[in-house]
Amino acid sequence: MNPESLAWNERLVGLPGGAARLDTPALVLDLDAFEHNLAAMAATARAQRVKLRPHAKTHKSVTVARRQLEAGEVVGFCCAKLGEAEALARGGLDHLLLTSPVFGESKLPRLLALHVRLADLAVVVDDPQQVEALAQAFAAAGRRLRVLVDVDVGSHRFGAPSVADALALARRIAAEPALELAGIQGYAGSIQHIADYAERAAAAGPVAAQLAEIRDALRAEGLRCPIVTGAGTGSHEIDARGGVFTDLQVGSYAFMDVEYLDCVLAADGSPRFRPALEVRTRVLSRRHAGFVTTDAGTKCFATDGPLPRVVGGAPAGSTYRMAGDQFGRLILPEGTEGPPLGAIVRCLVPHCDPTVNLWDHLVCVRGDTVEAIWPIEGRGAVA
Amino acid sequence: MNPESLAWNERLVGLPGGAARLDTPALVLDLDAFEHNLAAMAATARAQRVKLRPHAKTHKSVTVARRQLEAGEVVGFCCAKLGEAEALARGGLDHLLLTSPVFGESKLPRLLALHVRLADLAVVVDDPQQVEALAQAFAAAGRRLRVLVDVDVGSHRFGAPSVADALALARRIAAEPALELAGIQGYAGSIQHIADYAERAAAAGPVAAQLAEIRDALRAEGLRCPIVTGAGTGSHEIDARGGVFTDLQVGSYAFMDVEYLDCVLAADGSPRFRPALEVRTRVLSRRHAGFVTTDAGTKCFATDGPLPRVVGGAPAGSTYRMAGDQFGRLILPEGTEGPPLGAIVRCLVPHCDPTVNLWDHLVCVRGDTVEAIWPIEGRGAVA
Repeated sequence: MNPESLAWNERLVGLPGGAARLDTPALVLDLDAFEHNLAAMAATARAQRVKLRPHAKTHKSVTVARRQLEAGEVVGFCCAKLGEAEALARGGLDHLLLTSPVFGESKLPRLLALHVRLADLAVVVDDPQQVEALAQAFAAAGRRLRVLVDVDVGSHRFGAPSVADALALARRIAAEPALELAGIQGYAGSIQHIADYAERAAAAGPVAAQLAEIRDALRAEGLRCPIVTGAGTGSHEIDARGGVFTDLQVGSYAFMDVEYLDCVLAADGSPRFRPALEVRTRVLSRRHAGFVTTDAGTKCFATDGPLPRVVGGAPAGSTYRMAGDQFGRLILPEGTEGPPLGAIVRCLVPHCDPTVNLWDHLVCVRGDTVEAIWPIEGRGAVA
Repeated sequence: MNPESLAWNERLVGLPGGAARLDTPALVLDLDAFEHNLAAMAATARAQRVKLRPHAKTHKSVTVARRQLEAGEVVGFCCAKLGEAEALARGGLDHLLLTSPVFGESKLPRLLALHVRLADLAVVVDDPQQVEALAQAFAAAGRRLRVLVDVDVGSHRFGAPSVADALALARRIAAEPALELAGIQGYAGSIQHIADYAERAAAAGPVAAQLAEIRDALRAEGLRCPIVTGAGTGSHEIDARGGVFTDLQVGSYAFMDVEYLDCVLAADGSPRFRPALEVRTRVLSRRHAGFVTTDAGTKCFATDGPLPRVVGGAPAGSTYRMAGDQFGRLILPEGTEGPPLGAIVRCLVPHCDPTVNLWDHLVCVRGDTVEAIWPIEGRGAVA
C-alpha cells in the first residue's frame, strides 16, 4: 500500500497534462491500446464463432474484467487461485472457472461459500482424490458443483496424463450426484510463447487433437462435454480456427508485454495487439557518464522474463536493467546525453502477469491525461 | 489482498498444531529463529560499540521494526522510498533515514508532511539540484531538514563520485539555513554477498577508508559529520570492528535467505544468523513420476536470486523450481516417493527483500503453533 502516492495521483485525474506529473514509479495502462486489444480479441472470437473466458491471473482487476465483458464474446472468467475468484466475486463478477485444482481442509469451506454466492462456478480436477473430496463436501452441503477434467497437454504441471486417465476421471465425476461433469480443459502453456506462428501452429495441432479425442470418447459413452476450454494469447487465433475449443483462456492480450511482442500472433503477420502496459519511472541520480539511476527495480518489474523495454523519455537505443529492488539503470547509447533529474522514462513491462501482481493500482491514461485509477483487487491473492 | 485466506489463518492463532493446518501458500516467520537473529545482531553492535539503523526495505513491517527496536542498539530505521517511511510513521515509528534521494514535485509535499509528523527525519542527496530543491521547500515551510551526503562506494547507483564531490555537496548543504548537515552515507551493496569472509573484508576496507577520509576532511573544515552510516548484513561484523561507521544499515539478518546462507558472516566461521523466513506451499498435483506440483510460483518467490531451498516436507535432496506464476515443481530424488496431495512443503526464500514485498502478511509460528499474524504495511510502497 502506498496511500500518499495514490492520493497524489488521484488528484491528477482529469487534469490536462496530468500524466506528466505522476508520482512515480507507477504502473500505467494506455487506455487507447487496451481498448484496441479488447476489441481485436472480441472480433477474432466473433469471426471464428468461439467464446472467450479471459484469465484473471493477468490483471486481477474487477474493472478490467468488466471491460472485457463489455467488449463481447465473454462467457466467463478464469482464475488461477481461489483468492482471485473471491476478489472477482466481491466485485460482482460471475461465471468463474478455477483453472487449477482446489484441495484441502482450508479451501473447501471457501469454495462452498463462493458457490453459494455465484450463479456459476466451476473447478478442474486431475486426481480421483480431488473428486472425492469435492463430492463429499458438496453433497454434505446439499449443493452441486460443475467440474471439468484437466488434461495434461504437454506442460506437465497439472492434468490427467493420458486419454484413459481423463476418461476415468470423467466417469468418476459423472457418478457423483453432487458433481456435474462440465467438460475438459487443456492449457498448453508451454507453446504460447513460441515466436514463429507456423511453429506454434504445428505445436497447437496435436493439443487440440488430444482434447477432441477425449471429448468424442466421452460423448460416445453418453457423457456430456459441453466445454472444451484452453488456449492463450499465443495460440488464440490458431485455436479459434481449429474448432475444437469452445472458449479461449486468453489473458495477456489485454495488456501485452515484451515477451509477447516478440511473437507473431496473427497468421497475416500483423501486430494484432498493442503494448498497453508500462512502468513509468523517474531519473533519481545522474552522477556517471553512460547511465542514470531511476526509481523502479525488482519490486516494480517481474524478473522471470526479459528486461523492460524503454519506449519513451530516453535517447533511442537506451536499455534498462535492474539496480536492486527499488532502482533501475537506464543505459545510454554512446555519446548521448541522459534525461534530466526527475524526467519520466517509459518502460514496457517484461512479463505482464507477475509484474501486475506487484502493484495495487493501474493508473489509466489517455494521451497526456490520467483518466482513472483502477484498483488491482486480486493482487497477492495467491492462496 | 487475500481476505478469506487471512481469515482462515487468523482462526488458527493459538491453536495447538495450527501451523499444520495453514491455508497455503503462506509466508511464514519462525519466531525462535527471528528472535535469535535480532539478539545476535544487537550483541555484536553492543560488543563493538556501534549502533544499528535497520533497513525497512527488507521487512516493510511496523511490528518487525518494533521488535528490532526492543532488541536494542537501534538509533533509527532506514527506508528506501518515501512510501516505506510513511508506512513506518503511520505505525508510530520515528528516527527515519531515507537512504536514496527524494526529488520532484510529487515528493516534496509528502516529505514535508512526514517531517511535521516525526521528531527525526533525514534524507540523503547526491546532486546539487536535490540540495537546492530541498532547501527551497523547507525554507518556504519554515522547517529544517537533516541531510546526509551519499557517497558512491562502488555500487555506481547513487552517490557523489569523488571525495571532492562529496565535500562540495556537504559545503552546499551546510550553507543552507533550512538544511542541517547530518553526516555521510556509503552503502557498499555490491560487496555484501561476497561469500568468503576474508575476501569481503578486503573489499570493505577501502570503503571505510574512503568514508573516513571524507569525514576527516569535513571536520578539518569545521563542518559537522556526526553520522557515518552504511554497511549491511554481509559486512556488518567487519564494519562494526572497523570503527568508521557510527551505525549499520542491516536488513536481511532478521529473516535471512538462501543468498545469505551461502555467505560466512562471522570471522570465526560460525553461522551467526538462522534462516527464519519460509514460504509454505502444498502439493496440488502428483500425476507424474519424479516430481509433484505445488501451489507457490513466481507470485510467491522473488526470482532475482537463487532458487528456493527445500527444508521440510519432502525427501532429502528434493529441489524446487518455478512452474509459472502460481505453481512450483518439487523435483524428487531418484527412487523417492513424493509427499501426498495436500502435504506442506517448506522452502527457504531465495532473496528476502523482494520476496517479502509479494506478501501482505507474515504468519508467525513458534514450533507447531501460529502465534500471530503481522501485516506488511509497506508492501508495494515503491513510490
